[in-house]
Amino acid sequence: MSRKIIIDTDPGQDDAVAILLALASPEELDVLGIVAVAGNIGLKQNAINARKVVELSGRTDVPVYAGCSRPMRRTLVTAEHVHGDTGMNGPVLPDPTIPLQEQHGVDFIIATIMNNPPKTITLATLGPLTNIGMALVKEPAIAERIQEIVLMGGAYFEVGNITPAAEFNIYVDPEAADLVMKCGAKITIQPLDVTHMIQATPARLNAIKALGNKSGAAVHAMLTFSEQFDLKKYGWEGAPLHDPTVIAYLLKPELFEGRVCNVSIETASELTVGMTVADYWHVTDKPRNALYLRSGNAEGFYALLTERLSRLP
Amino acid sequence: MSRKIIIDTDPGQDDAVAILLALASPEELDVLGIVAVAGNIGLKQNAINARKVVELSGRTDVPVYAGCSRPMRRTLVTAEHVHGDTGMNGPVLPDPTIPLQEQHGVDFIIATIMNNPPKTITLATLGPLTNIGMALVKEPAIAERIQEIVLMGGAYFEVGNITPAAEFNIYVDPEAADLVMKCGAKITIQPLDVTHMIQATPARLNAIKALGNKSGAAVHAMLTFSEQFDLKKYGWEGAPLHDPTVIAYLLKPELFEGRVCNVSIETASELTVGMTVADYWHVTDKPRNALYLRSGNAEGFYALLTERLSRLP
Amino acid sequence: MSRKIIIDTDPGQDDAVAILLALASPEELDVLGIVAVAGNIGLKQNAINARKVVELSGRTDVPVYAGCSRPMRRTLVTAEHVHGDTGMNGPVLPDPTIPLQEQHGVDFIIATIMNNPPKTITLATLGPLTNIGMALVKEPAIAERIQEIVLMGGAYFEVGNITPAAEFNIYVDPEAADLVMKCGAKITIQPLDVTHMIQATPARLNAIKALGNKSGAAVHAMLTFSEQFDLKKYGWEGAPLHDPTVIAYLLKPELFEGRVCNVSIETASELTVGMTVADYWHVTDKPRNALYLRSGNAEGFYALLTERLSRLP
Amino acid sequence: MSRKIIIDTDPGQDDAVAILLALASPEELDVLGIVAVAGNIGLKQNAINARKVVELSGRTDVPVYAGCSRPMRRTLVTAEHVHGDTGMNGPVLPDPTIPLQEQHGVDFIIATIMNNPPKTITLATLGPLTNIGMALVKEPAIAERIQEIVLMGGAYFEVGNITPAAEFNIYVDPEAADLVMKCGAKITIQPLDVTHMIQATPARLNAIKALGNKSGAAVHAMLTFSEQFDLKKYGWEGAPLHDPTVIAYLLKPELFEGRVCNVSIETASELTVGMTVADYWHVTDKPRNALYLRSGNAEGFYALLTERLSRLP
Repeated sequence: MSRKIIIDTDPGQDDAVAILLALASPEELDVLGIVAVAGNIGLKQNAINARKVVELSGRTDVPVYAGCSRPMRRTLVTAEHVHGDTGMNGPVLPDPTIPLQEQHGVDFIIATIMNNPPKTITLATLGPLTNIGMALVKEPAIAERIQEIVLMGGAYFEVGNITPAAEFNIYVDPEAADLVMKCGAKITIQPLDVTHMIQATPARLNAIKALGNKSGAAVHAMLTFSEQFDLKKYGWEGAPLHDPTVIAYLLKPELFEGRVCNVSIETASELTVGMTVADYWHVTDKPRNALYLRSGNAEGFYALLTERLSRLP
Repeated sequence: MSRKIIIDTDPGQDDAVAILLALASPEELDVLGIVAVAGNIGLKQNAINARKVVELSGRTDVPVYAGCSRPMRRTLVTAEHVHGDTGMNGPVLPDPTIPLQEQHGVDFIIATIMNNPPKTITLATLGPLTNIGMALVKEPAIAERIQEIVLMGGAYFEVGNITPAAEFNIYVDPEAADLVMKCGAKITIQPLDVTHMIQATPARLNAIKALGNKSGAAVHAMLTFSEQFDLKKYGWEGAPLHDPTVIAYLLKPELFEGRVCNVSIETASELTVGMTVADYWHVTDKPRNALYLRSGNAEGFYALLTERLSRLP
Repeated sequence: MSRKIIIDTDPGQDDAVAILLALASPEELDVLGIVAVAGNIGLKQNAINARKVVELSGRTDVPVYAGCSRPMRRTLVTAEHVHGDTGMNGPVLPDPTIPLQEQHGVDFIIATIMNNPPKTITLATLGPLTNIGMALVKEPAIAERIQEIVLMGGAYFEVGNITPAAEFNIYVDPEAADLVMKCGAKITIQPLDVTHMIQATPARLNAIKALGNKSGAAVHAMLTFSEQFDLKKYGWEGAPLHDPTVIAYLLKPELFEGRVCNVSIETASELTVGMTVADYWHVTDKPRNALYLRSGNAEGFYALLTERLSRLP
Repeated sequence: MSRKIIIDTDPGQDDAVAILLALASPEELDVLGIVAVAGNIGLKQNAINARKVVELSGRTDVPVYAGCSRPMRRTLVTAEHVHGDTGMNGPVLPDPTIPLQEQHGVDFIIATIMNNPPKTITLATLGPLTNIGMALVKEPAIAERIQEIVLMGGAYFEVGNITPAAEFNIYVDPEAADLVMKCGAKITIQPLDVTHMIQATPARLNAIKALGNKSGAAVHAMLTFSEQFDLKKYGWEGAPLHDPTVIAYLLKPELFEGRVCNVSIETASELTVGMTVADYWHVTDKPRNALYLRSGNAEGFYALLTERLSRLP
């Protein structure tokens, strides 16, 4: 039986690839809805992008919601310098025709969790955790009903990207991330430590393009655009690929390794705000609240991604 | 024409008196709804207390909503040591018969502001600012549509009560208070600086009891209970009276004096968290975002309160 | 028998008056040395000013030392906007002829305390607490040998002057102040709460001028200059007078009233850094580490000051 | 011509090895003095340990000073759990016969720098930076006269050891480290990123023992003791070796690689206090104040160490 998930996202090219990977995997994943959140780019554009991706996949049965347009405490920081002015530069995709749902994304998350049996809904989050944090404050009862939160965010050994200490998703709304880390639900984290290993080399991107379908072409175009920033920064052969690791973990957890440990979010210091401090060596007595993944199998990941994308239009 | 207000509250004896004062003043104030928030006591009891007070006033047309049961970031701190185990110890009031509204209080606030003409809705807040902060994040467009936020909270010259630096309402949810202070709406603050001048002396309480109605008796019983804590602490003739000053300001602003200045909320330091730092002497260039009241006319206040309570059952 | 004191100071007109008050009172106070510290103005000028004041008093037997030229952690903030470009604008005083001692002021403090019997040396501090903080780190053994630290600094009910939360002396070196508050020695604090009551009205200043001596004329000229800033700010009849209250307390403690309570220094928050958080109402369990004075007898103070100044040249 | 250095240290087995490496290299390094500081163990024992090591080396001409017994702001944290109750458990070394110098270590540092030509004195620091921080406050003029500060401390990619974010030396006195980072002198940092590569494997330790001299035996005994903690923690073949990398860098900088970038010290947050935040990827505009080393040649290092130790008694 497939696993019920809600994808919370700020697409973003790598978000788009993650959504495609999920929508291409209906046997394993029942995507109940996609909720946009302000992050890589503003909310309005994110909600458009999410619908474009849904239409590209052909899965127009999947509803798209708009959640929060700003973080819980701070001024929104976006990343057009990486993703381009549309947040999803690269391919030319038609304007979406499916509607944006009227219900607020936060209320969709709450209602879905409260109206399904306990521990049957998984949250797959690809952006700032604002919607989840807001849902936890508005209806604290969801915490013990969530099956799992699998999130892309954070960095520890591989340090930060938006600042020397912080990864973008957590940095944008550290207070929401802090609420998530402390909520008591099962948590799995895909940090930069993993995604820096999952490099989109030319060979891997070309294999996707060679699929010959619309989706493969779009993914190739998207990642070719978005990886420019990191290629220039790191000088590696391929750029890191972030958000699809969340879906890959849901499909094939055996591709990743990590450790259950305490993960705390820095919110007090301007210098390190947004850092995910992982007690990977268990030097403190803090509760072991998350599975912190540290490595991933890049070959296995790209084999999975390519195969699944081949199923799409 | 009467002014449309929403009362956000955590009753609390002094909240109850404030609600009664508002409900006794329909010519000036059109109370669209009362929203409970966790504060002096937990949300569930607050929502019961609010309905008890509405029934006591005879104004059973006023709907009561439940908002948030916890602050935006922190663990809830309550004040049973002041208000008693029910949060409203003192009088014996019957269990409420009017229903609690189904809509979440945060959504009631958002909908009311968005569905009325701009600048026609005033928020009168008597507790922690969680519901307002949540509404500002969930729907930022409300900020420029709010007519005014008049709040009881904070302390500057008269220093804190729950800690040496912080007043209770702000201390419980300083992040929500910070959102409010920065939201751009017109803000008026009734801090301890004022409420410590509005002392409920025996003579003033007796005058209320002497009204001979149910409401007067209940107010006398409530304040006689709740003032014990402060009387013991300060050794004054009468205890401070807090929340009704918000409603009194809406009815007779000329009873109070203050200064428009910057008011910032301390959220970074454990020592001073929840402090309302008022730049009363304009020593910084920070924006003058609030009317910070510093003094009140106690005689005028109690004359107003007593007269209005006389109109109730 | 006179009490042995070291005056640590950043003169400053009001520092100068304090020094004169001490040097005019040899029966009660044996001033072992005066140590300059960066504060109202840079160290070099402070050391010159201190010697000018010593020469004005005729007490050229009192040695003057230079201590630290910068705070323990932060960039030095000075107050020429109050004190003028020399830090002691107002009177024309001749350049000093007595030498500056070669020993570092911090080492003079340590050596004096360690080489005298325990509990026989009092530190009277009129500026930032840098020298004392440095001495406590360099030689922690001094803490239990200090008789008392009487300091001008801080503000609580009367709020800050350099920021809305902080008084200048503590603000300049809050980390040093924090070390002092936690050192375990007996501490007495003269905050703005007191000094705002000790107003240098025209009548009081004229009485000093009318003494007819050089010192009276200099004090009148100094305070007439330095009070301009506060008179403009507060609109009172006379400006507050700060540092001399420390010496007045040593001479006539009965002029002041206060409470032994916890006093903690804010060092963590940019908004409130340098605040002296006094648990005046004992709402916490923190150790009662200081006598926090809250009120002073202005008439008694100025009578004392005027009489003592009359003894000087 | 040999380079003049002062070694500031809290021995500690690895400090001892570093001192021996320096004292065995008189052609390159002229050790003007060794200054003890509270860190791995209390100051008194550190000063004893330093003298034991000097005597072991036969270089009894090198003076040993005691500096500060406590950090600049915080309560001292020590590491007997790693180093044993003497801080230098392992070998049996005779009690020292050379005297401890009377001058305070901070004053020795200041005097040495001020009395030598500018840019001729290098500080090699192996422990918390208290003495250097204190010297910078007591005599700020030293900053521009220091030739270089080469310090063991910090962690970035290899994360912390005493907490998940902080390395011990920096954690013990982060405020002193902050002063050092901002002082303007040339700074080179040997963090855990390097020292975790310089593993004291059994083969390498045995080669040192096989030298057959007293010093080799002592080093073998010391490191065999101290490495137990990390071997258990990390499960590696050999434990990291920290402090000798500072001296190795002075002797053969070509053994190490890194990048000049901004390094800032976390002092504001309890969660991450003491972290050395290195802007290794230049994502900020902060000044590039330090050479942050990231890798070292372990074979080259141990060859150097072993050869030099062979020159000692």
